[in-house]
Amino acid sequence: MTYARLHESARKLGELNNALAMLMWDEAVMMPAGSGNGRGETLATLAGMAHDLSSDPSIEDWIDASLNESLDAWQRANVDQIRRAYIAAKAVPKDLVVAISKATSKTEQCWRTARAENDWRTIEPLLEEVVGLTIQRADALAQMSNVTPYDALLDEYEPGLKQSSIDPVFDDLASFLPAFVDDAIARSSEIAIPGPFPVAAQERLGRELMSAVGFDFERGRLDVSHHPFCGGIADDTRITTRYNEDDFLESMFAVLHETGHALYQQGLPDAWRGQPVGAAGGMALHESQSLLMEMQVCRGDDFLRFAAPIVSRALGGDSHGDLGADRLGADRLGAMARRVRRGFIRVDADEVTYPLHVILRYQLETALLSGDLQVGDIPTAWHDKMVDFLGLSTEGNFHDGCMQDVHWFAGLIGYFPTYTLGAVAAAQLFAAARAAIDGLGQRIGDGDFEPLVGWLRDNVHSEGRRFTTNELLERVTGRPLETKDFRAHLEARYLS
Amino acid sequence: MTYARLHESARKLGELNNALAMLMWDEAVMMPAGSGNGRGETLATLAGMAHDLSSDPSIEDWIDASLNESLDAWQRANVDQIRRAYIAAKAVPKDLVVAISKATSKTEQCWRTARAENDWRTIEPLLEEVVGLTIQRADALAQMSNVTPYDALLDEYEPGLKQSSIDPVFDDLASFLPAFVDDAIARSSEIAIPGPFPVAAQERLGRELMSAVGFDFERGRLDVSHHPFCGGIADDTRITTRYNEDDFLESMFAVLHETGHALYQQGLPDAWRGQPVGAAGGMALHESQSLLMEMQVCRGDDFLRFAAPIVSRALGGDSHGDLGADRLGADRLGAMARRVRRGFIRVDADEVTYPLHVILRYQLETALLSGDLQVGDIPTAWHDKMVDFLGLSTEGNFHDGCMQDVHWFAGLIGYFPTYTLGAVAAAQLFAAARAAIDGLGQRIGDGDFEPLVGWLRDNVHSEGRRFTTNELLERVTGRPLETKDFRAHLEARYLS
Repeated sequence: MTYARLHESARKLGELNNALAMLMWDEAVMMPAGSGNGRGETLATLAGMAHDLSSDPSIEDWIDASLNESLDAWQRANVDQIRRAYIAAKAVPKDLVVAISKATSKTEQCWRTARAENDWRTIEPLLEEVVGLTIQRADALAQMSNVTPYDALLDEYEPGLKQSSIDPVFDDLASFLPAFVDDAIARSSEIAIPGPFPVAAQERLGRELMSAVGFDFERGRLDVSHHPFCGGIADDTRITTRYNEDDFLESMFAVLHETGHALYQQGLPDAWRGQPVGAAGGMALHESQSLLMEMQVCRGDDFLRFAAPIVSRALGGDSHGDLGADRLGADRLGAMARRVRRGFIRVDADEVTYPLHVILRYQLETALLSGDLQVGDIPTAWHDKMVDFLGLSTEGNFHDGCMQDVHWFAGLIGYFPTYTLGAVAAAQLFAAARAAIDGLGQRIGDGDFEPLVGWLRDNVHSEGRRFTTNELLERVTGRPLETKDFRAHLEARYLS
Repeated sequence: MTYARLHESARKLGELNNALAMLMWDEAVMMPAGSGNGRGETLATLAGMAHDLSSDPSIEDWIDASLNESLDAWQRANVDQIRRAYIAAKAVPKDLVVAISKATSKTEQCWRTARAENDWRTIEPLLEEVVGLTIQRADALAQMSNVTPYDALLDEYEPGLKQSSIDPVFDDLASFLPAFVDDAIARSSEIAIPGPFPVAAQERLGRELMSAVGFDFERGRLDVSHHPFCGGIADDTRITTRYNEDDFLESMFAVLHETGHALYQQGLPDAWRGQPVGAAGGMALHESQSLLMEMQVCRGDDFLRFAAPIVSRALGGDSHGDLGADRLGADRLGAMARRVRRGFIRVDADEVTYPLHVILRYQLETALLSGDLQVGDIPTAWHDKMVDFLGLSTEGNFHDGCMQDVHWFAGLIGYFPTYTLGAVAAAQLFAAARAAIDGLGQRIGDGDFEPLVGWLRDNVHSEGRRFTTNELLERVTGRPLETKDFRAHLEARYLS
């Protein structure tokens, strides 16, 4: 069977990608500072080998031949994914790949210091080069797959995603959120829980909550890195966090967020380990799993009722101020977990303001791609939209404005929308889970996460990459992605 | 230039090997228990790709062509090393490689439980299979390179090493050591330093001593694993240790031993990173660097004079018994560091008895290879030699006898001799360093390791794999490997 050849070549590629995933985790978590250049060489060489494997010309023949063979639905979906990767690898000329790799690496490094120094002038020409090369890449991909250049970039992060299906979602959010933010802030309470909270105690707390919701420490780890992330592979899932001794909730919710990603990864179908169809779905679906856990579940009252005694046991004991037993009670945790505030920084934003940060970036990057916006005009456009959406001026403040995120400087255009699509999908999936599971809120309050995680595993995790996010949502919730449940969630949580 | 093609293919192979080295470190130090099967798949796939790269038939043509080009001495030595790897990779048929990989993996796993249960009967047939396959491999390699089968195995661990050059060294050691052990034990004092010594304090002590002797933490780490080892790569060198709260010297000397390996690795020639000629020399030379540091330097009085105040600062403070200020003094540390005792276990042996453990294994494994010893007769042969060499019976005690080491069960035949050749080479190199560096003992006592480490870097580390160990010894000490300095070292340390 020709299909077996495809399967074997995908298996090799999968193991190479597994190695890359572990090495990238190591780079972020373990690697000493002076070993970066060598690691860069190793990663680039392995990535080159992976590119060679996925663009091997034999693959095209094998795909054609195997489609005449009798394949089951999983095998057929696997061939589709192999074809997708093959087309993407073949579409972009190798010298363009190299040029992008060099330009983004240089620009990303420059961005680190330039951002710190609020220096737009230095980074501007570098970003211009990166955007120019990214447009070339988008054009090459678009020609190959008969879509628009921006859709071609979207597809890399979220298979099958199109601007035409983002627009109605983002238009709706943009229409009600600015006024909604005013209302939510008016009801939000400005409180604090005085620390300090020792790192070791925060770490024990994080581990206990991870275990409670279902993280499998036999096949995963928790460590520390500069930014929290979920890395590694399905059977060796490694999440990270960082600790702030003045505010334990930062790390606690970061851990729970990454645990949502991790449960997805740990729940991928074993039988398809290393095959493209066995990988996680797109970034929006991945983010829906982290946000379902963090936003839908863990920042809600049911979860905090369960968590409060665990938090008290881990972090209480000594007395700070005169809050007494209520200091770490569920009410106080809930008020902290659901504060709404306008701010400049996307990664610090709450779930109410967050979509506005994303929509701003989406509007600018689509305009960059279509040529309606030039790189030199980004700071002004950013400022204008921040004033519109959140009433904040970023004039002259590049550090907290258009230079705050690494994405564009690293060549990642088309990535931002997936954050908010994930938030919307999370609400839709959680609404379906509530409908499917009797007394889900009560179960969560009792610390019984098996019904929810089992439902997610059956309906989402175990499907791997068989379906696009919209197909999956239709199967599981009966509808493609829409804002209804997200809006209802925000109203119930922040206005009632 | 055709040489450039060889260089590029070696570079790719080198990066693949770098990735493997980091993943193997991770497996031993970080990987969660349940991720072993997946990691095994990843490692096997990458090792297979490395094998394919090093046996690529084009290499043979490129080697022939490049030898007609004008190459410098390093390039020529690099071609020699590429040829060596190519021949070894080509000599062994792929189905034999796979059969050995499966047999050793199965046998090694079985060994873990069988050793714990002192169960020779279960492991015997598995070991028979491993030895049989190893003999086939040795025969294949031997035919290809016109040497004896055992020499072909030796060459894998120590390029160019031959039984004929081991015999005179081991014969000499075997002739004087048994009586020497009696004398040394008679002068050895049985003392102890009461603990406990907290792990965190031991770790700080280890790091301080590593830094003092020259370990570069900007390009390396210290962690914990089941057995201490030095892993990683030249520009990311990772050593490990384990901690015993009752005896800090175990970990302290393990750390210093691995630091010797690490200094070698960190001192390899940058310009030849990833190329075969830029790798470390054979295992005997590698072990000479760890034993030079541990045995020649750190268990000596000069070093302990320097280390004692550091040890006191790290581990003193509280009072145990009535030893007072002398509890962690240099004299006491020296007496502890130089105890000589007969024992069953090689890895616990002191430097006086250690060679006898190795010679025993050497005599048995050469007999296994030549057919003079059958696997079924190993336990009796082991017992007989232990009685001869150390006066200890291992009758019925497989756990502390012929099942104590994983090597043979993992298919590693030809490896053991390098431990003792390394000890002998360490003495010879250290004698040369003493002759070359004015007042070396005083410098070490003052904590000034730069003269010694600089000398090692110039004379050994920076040479990479350009020379065989014997060639290097002749260049640096004027003589090939011989026991004179080792014997003098033992006499000075244990009989005077």
